[in-house]
Amino acid sequence: MPKQFDIRLRVFQEEPAFGKGVAELMELIELKGSLSAAYKEMGMAASKAWKILKRAEADLGFSLVESVSGGKTGGYSKLTEEGKEFLKRYQMFRKEMDQAAKESFLKYFGNQDAT
Amino acid sequence: MPKQFDIRLRVFQEEPAFGKGVAELMELIELKGSLSAAYKEMGMAASKAWKILKRAEADLGFSLVESVSGGKTGGYSKLTEEGKEFLKRYQMFRKEMDQAAKESFLKYFGNQDAT
Repeated sequence: MPKQFDIRLRVFQEEPAFGKGVAELMELIELKGSLSAAYKEMGMAASKAWKILKRAEADLGFSLVESVSGGKTGGYSKLTEEGKEFLKRYQMFRKEMDQAAKESFLKYFGNQDAT
Repeated sequence: MPKQFDIRLRVFQEEPAFGKGVAELMELIELKGSLSAAYKEMGMAASKAWKILKRAEADLGFSLVESVSGGKTGGYSKLTEEGKEFLKRYQMFRKEMDQAAKESFLKYFGNQDAT
């Protein structure tokens, strides 16, 4: 009998483009103020990071991240206001579902001697 | 903002080998009494069906499907008792999670004017 579960949660308009990967990328951008620092931390290629981010933005219909390039500091990236709000909702959705899954899994697979 | 979600749920011992695909295959085997009828219905190659089934069995540590070959009827496939019980639990787990996700999604993404 199984002893663990895995849950994947994506939210989208038409194409399932936003999930754990983009969420983690955004969390790291928020933390580090840099897109390149974020994808490097994840061990992700620049082209892949760019692609998953742009795909999610295209599907959702708004920008998640804005980059300001140049200047003395060499530019930076940050979440847009809409991106911040969206990420917060996804994180709460995700957290609630993780908790629900833990309880459900225990209910259906946690007491296997009872069958 | 997203208008829909997608949830993937896998249960396993060590490797995430059991999810929607094997569950659907098992449901169709139960319905049709035949592994080949089941994977054909899914538009799945025989080799793929065999592989996902055997991988799930290997990970879970018990047989999900038993096939009786030969005889006048040309053989058939059916779920093992353990497979039946396991599938039932997975279906209940899945159903409960689908319902929880609907409610959570509505909660976090359903009332976007409120922000």
